[in-house]
Amino acid sequence: MTESSLLLFVTMGNPCYLLKKPSYCGKTRHCSCIPRYSRSKALGISNWSCVATNERSQEYSFVNHQPLENTPESLVVEVGEGKKWFLGTSMQQSFEKMIRKAQDDICDAIEKLDGTPFKQDVWTRQEGGGGISRVLQDGIVFEKAGVNVSVVYGHMPPEAVKAASARGVTRDGGYGPNEKVPFFAAGISSVIHPKNPMAPTVHFNYRYFETERGLWWFGGGTDLTPSFLFEDDCSHFHKCLKETCDRHDSEFYPKFKKWCDEYFLIKHRGERRGIGGIFFDDLNDRPAEQLFEFSKDCANTVIPAYVPIIERRKDMPYTEQEKNWQQLRRGRYVEFNLVYDRGTVFGLKTGGRIESILMSLPLTARWEYDHHPEENSREAQLLTVLREPKEWI
Amino acid sequence: MTESSLLLFVTMGNPCYLLKKPSYCGKTRHCSCIPRYSRSKALGISNWSCVATNERSQEYSFVNHQPLENTPESLVVEVGEGKKWFLGTSMQQSFEKMIRKAQDDICDAIEKLDGTPFKQDVWTRQEGGGGISRVLQDGIVFEKAGVNVSVVYGHMPPEAVKAASARGVTRDGGYGPNEKVPFFAAGISSVIHPKNPMAPTVHFNYRYFETERGLWWFGGGTDLTPSFLFEDDCSHFHKCLKETCDRHDSEFYPKFKKWCDEYFLIKHRGERRGIGGIFFDDLNDRPAEQLFEFSKDCANTVIPAYVPIIERRKDMPYTEQEKNWQQLRRGRYVEFNLVYDRGTVFGLKTGGRIESILMSLPLTARWEYDHHPEENSREAQLLTVLREPKEWI
Repeated sequence: MTESSLLLFVTMGNPCYLLKKPSYCGKTRHCSCIPRYSRSKALGISNWSCVATNERSQEYSFVNHQPLENTPESLVVEVGEGKKWFLGTSMQQSFEKMIRKAQDDICDAIEKLDGTPFKQDVWTRQEGGGGISRVLQDGIVFEKAGVNVSVVYGHMPPEAVKAASARGVTRDGGYGPNEKVPFFAAGISSVIHPKNPMAPTVHFNYRYFETERGLWWFGGGTDLTPSFLFEDDCSHFHKCLKETCDRHDSEFYPKFKKWCDEYFLIKHRGERRGIGGIFFDDLNDRPAEQLFEFSKDCANTVIPAYVPIIERRKDMPYTEQEKNWQQLRRGRYVEFNLVYDRGTVFGLKTGGRIESILMSLPLTARWEYDHHPEENSREAQLLTVLREPKEWI
Repeated sequence: MTESSLLLFVTMGNPCYLLKKPSYCGKTRHCSCIPRYSRSKALGISNWSCVATNERSQEYSFVNHQPLENTPESLVVEVGEGKKWFLGTSMQQSFEKMIRKAQDDICDAIEKLDGTPFKQDVWTRQEGGGGISRVLQDGIVFEKAGVNVSVVYGHMPPEAVKAASARGVTRDGGYGPNEKVPFFAAGISSVIHPKNPMAPTVHFNYRYFETERGLWWFGGGTDLTPSFLFEDDCSHFHKCLKETCDRHDSEFYPKFKKWCDEYFLIKHRGERRGIGGIFFDDLNDRPAEQLFEFSKDCANTVIPAYVPIIERRKDMPYTEQEKNWQQLRRGRYVEFNLVYDRGTVFGLKTGGRIESILMSLPLTARWEYDHHPEENSREAQLLTVLREPKEWI
């Protein structure tokens, strides 16, 4: 699971509820919403209502356009009877707090680089929880940057719990095959695509998962996708990640670096999506507090690992041909996300919030038939490391 | 199965062999091919050799750059011992002849519209058969037009035979679960993306499938994907298809029109990819000769159904905003093909010839976060019919 790992739990057969800022309303036509639902107090919202349906053919089925004045303090809100069960553990609270702060910090850093503010959508989910999606589109430095937080809970089939972990590890707590498993999942996920082809795309995702009966695990990762190789960018990025890993366990970096190279393989191309980073899932081999600290440390490493790279690449000159190559690499990004990424594919097929899931796609992409870069070109140099991952430090 | 339906059988765990015209060689670096294979006489080629491997990580694993002087008369060639079994039936020969002629005719018509010639790749497949891929990229009228023919045969696992038919109909002839089924598959598949946003994309695919022990079926379809709705284009297109269908069975058009609307649904969007056409699979309910005549008639309907539409749309004026909408629709095309199209997904995951499979993707595409067209706009008008398919005649 990656960028949309949490999003896939957003609806799991249930409709989404979406709140929109007034600024979005001008260009849409979601005027036929039927008030059906109200929990303004819990969300700190002055007045809103919404309509939901599982019919995807109804465009605005999960859209509400009442003004949202505040983002809620917590996305965990009471939603009817029988939904509270194991909610409210201190780890759940800590993790939500951590990812909300990471979202704020990272959006601030990206806004500062770009000079364009993020737009925000806050949405809630019928069965439980919700999310905050922030997008900066067609900015000065960035083509598209999405930073999502979601905190969702409810009941899911055991096979969905299985699909939610990297290797299909059984974490169903001994529920029967048709018994739905109460779960809680919180995470931050983000993809940031810069405009300049010399500036790489970054993706990161950190998540915490719990099922009833005391089962829990952590997952996540941060990886870099350049169109042109700058060895110092790659080594800086990996060095930041390694230093963070090493503060927690010296075995983490080599293990999670390798896992990342394996996960982001575009199998039909025989290429990785990018130059890697770290990736881990199903992590529960030590006290949760330790893994929480590790996840937090990783999320806090995104800015020092990524921002300096953008600062030195964002204004570099480039040719039309180089822009073209970036667009072809964007095409490969789309191929990975739509064909292989477990979170995306599963999310799309099980009714996740589409716009939040596909936020990871670039603004523009290109496919040329049978394209091969010139031998010894910088484009070919990139392909070499995508085909044979290397050690960067 | 659709655009890449035949391509998925191209390698089925086996490597592809690709022959390239000299014109392609300048820009590639496939210089380390190891001669391993030679059957120049059968293919009417003066001198060529190639190397193959299942390692996708080796870029030029299935590329050969020896000159191809002639396209072979038949893609059915002898490849070692024990591969001949049931090859050479008159239907196999007729079908290959039919799709080869359709490829020539359609490419001629497209070239005439554009003024740019197609480039051709002829490739063969180790286990049996091969293909002719023709692409016109970045032309005057067309952004990308691909017309593929493939004729492949060999042995495939029963589950692959099952996946090769629309509804998983059992056509394995009673083979055991681990027994490989001898098969023959021939087809033409094409996607044509024009540049002008007022001009629609067309896709068509006609195929014939045989497994040993006398089982066979036909499949195919033709469908239109506009970015802007012109009712007369839609009704002309459907009228052509209906007239063709009616010549063979008055039940065909309503049945295959509905099937098309169902197949090309982008489920997560609740939209069809386009305004439909016809789609059928597993057709074997009457003599093969009758279904062959129907398939041939359908293939011959592509030009009269599509070309007049392009003639009246290709030079229409359009705005940057309209081009932008076309690019967003291209993004949806990519979503359908990479997430849902059975042929594409299966082909990518089982080692089909990637460039032939992904030839169906547009040259350029775009994804904007949470895009909604203005109410009552032409863009919104298109969405209405993509959400609720209508009768065009």
